[in-house]
Amino acid sequence: MQSKTILVTGGGGFLGSHLCETLLDRGARVKVIDNFTSGRASNLARMLDRLELINGSITDEHKVEEASPGVDAVVHAAFPMPLRHRSLETGAVTDATAGLFNLLKEAVKNRSLFIYISSIAVYGDQEYIPIDEKHPLEPVLLYGAVKLSGEHFCAALAKSHGLKAVVLRVADIYGPKNTRINLPVQFLLDALNGRPLKIFGSGRQSRTYTYIDDYLKAVCAAIAEPAAAGQVFNISSGRAVSVYDLAMHVRKITGGKAVVTFEKGEADDRQLIIDNSLSRQVLNLGQPVGLEEGLSATWDWLRNNPHFYET
Amino acid sequence: MQSKTILVTGGGGFLGSHLCETLLDRGARVKVIDNFTSGRASNLARMLDRLELINGSITDEHKVEEASPGVDAVVHAAFPMPLRHRSLETGAVTDATAGLFNLLKEAVKNRSLFIYISSIAVYGDQEYIPIDEKHPLEPVLLYGAVKLSGEHFCAALAKSHGLKAVVLRVADIYGPKNTRINLPVQFLLDALNGRPLKIFGSGRQSRTYTYIDDYLKAVCAAIAEPAAAGQVFNISSGRAVSVYDLAMHVRKITGGKAVVTFEKGEADDRQLIIDNSLSRQVLNLGQPVGLEEGLSATWDWLRNNPHFYET
Repeated sequence: MQSKTILVTGGGGFLGSHLCETLLDRGARVKVIDNFTSGRASNLARMLDRLELINGSITDEHKVEEASPGVDAVVHAAFPMPLRHRSLETGAVTDATAGLFNLLKEAVKNRSLFIYISSIAVYGDQEYIPIDEKHPLEPVLLYGAVKLSGEHFCAALAKSHGLKAVVLRVADIYGPKNTRINLPVQFLLDALNGRPLKIFGSGRQSRTYTYIDDYLKAVCAAIAEPAAAGQVFNISSGRAVSVYDLAMHVRKITGGKAVVTFEKGEADDRQLIIDNSLSRQVLNLGQPVGLEEGLSATWDWLRNNPHFYET
Repeated sequence: MQSKTILVTGGGGFLGSHLCETLLDRGARVKVIDNFTSGRASNLARMLDRLELINGSITDEHKVEEASPGVDAVVHAAFPMPLRHRSLETGAVTDATAGLFNLLKEAVKNRSLFIYISSIAVYGDQEYIPIDEKHPLEPVLLYGAVKLSGEHFCAALAKSHGLKAVVLRVADIYGPKNTRINLPVQFLLDALNGRPLKIFGSGRQSRTYTYIDDYLKAVCAAIAEPAAAGQVFNISSGRAVSVYDLAMHVRKITGGKAVVTFEKGEADDRQLIIDNSLSRQVLNLGQPVGLEEGLSATWDWLRNNPHFYET
């Protein structure tokens, strides 16, 4: 990374701020563009003297134009948070589209590598498991449809305008500073606050939770490995865990005192097992971080930052 | 159609204005929304006393909100013309996205059937022929990627919000009032003006030219046939014609005097043969219009409107 300049969108967010730190540690020059609607300036506080911060929105064509010359790779991790919800807001969809498109145009112009952070939400309900990159693409949520649209934009501009792009379909990432309180973080928070760990439904539904370090390794490899360009990769631990097992792990890691309760919930026995063989092979990723190790690291951070989710 | 109210976006365009006329003839109430950036008010001149015209853009959320209550079906035929070109304009992409999304939201709210006019551009280069609806979706052009994004939005909102949608992937349509001068129209224009019909390359490349009447029949059937909802259909004549054969047909129809010349051009022997079996079966479409018949009708119109493309 020594000689590379990397532009990180959404650099104030969970994925983005961790990535900035990793890139800086590896010797890259880092530019961040973020409008801090969901990202936090405090996530970048320790790095402000080492990176170039552009405080603005990627929907602003001029900001993106200013930020892009000389950039070797763009990591597009920004995404409008409202698209995570069920409500239908035209503004959120057009912001996502405009931001992506402004970045793509500049990447074409400056011949920057484009790392597109997509999501396993592009697959929709599993038709088979484990879900590899050839699985049908039938997103159930608008979130997934918007992410998938971005993949098509990347692929079309690769064919029509010579864009070099890597698509990373990211599984459920967890770790310190998680913006979304997903289930591993929820359980850890509950344990921290003496609340029961609630399992809704059977507890058999499983997801491929993946520790943040595996994501960081994958992004760096996607930038560094020439064979990655033009390809689509799942980024995941490759190992699914059921809600029940996750609760048990959290109980053990947090001292064994947490109460686990079963609550009535919709039957959701989906097995979102996300295959990672292709990325492990092409990006040479090695062993993913184990669940206990990742949960322990997140637990340590949470005990040191018990008020993170209150601010 | 007697009791139905249909909202047609892009009603001033080629596809849209023909559709309005057909819908009115079949007894429907018709609302048109168009901002006339590429559509022509003159295309609607004969119908202005019979339809409700909303002069505005579908990117305007309030216009769409006003237009939508009481609508049984929306036919979304509007599309920003700049997306047809190779240039990359953020505004065109976000306009397409915002317009579509505004319409989708209202269709969900008002439980209107949504007829999404997509394109065979979603397929990209053929991997096999004839191209049916199961062909891989790998658009080569931004145009196709944007159309495909729209399909994903429809599908996701069908799953998450109960939208009833029909996707029509439309082949190359030709006929009177064509906005784009595609090859059948170009050859007819050349014949009309005494210019040679120029074939670039081998003349073996073929496309599935489809007469406007087949498109109109398909849209009406998609509105009327309950089994269509939730499905994706190719709309095409099912019959490909090579550039060479097209030139020969045009020469014959236009009096046999046109000179046909071969010009140097890139080797493009693509065979865009678009299968229509599914739509013919489910939408009960009958025999498509023959090429000679369609060309003759377009020729008659062109002779009566020789200055259409000069204004």
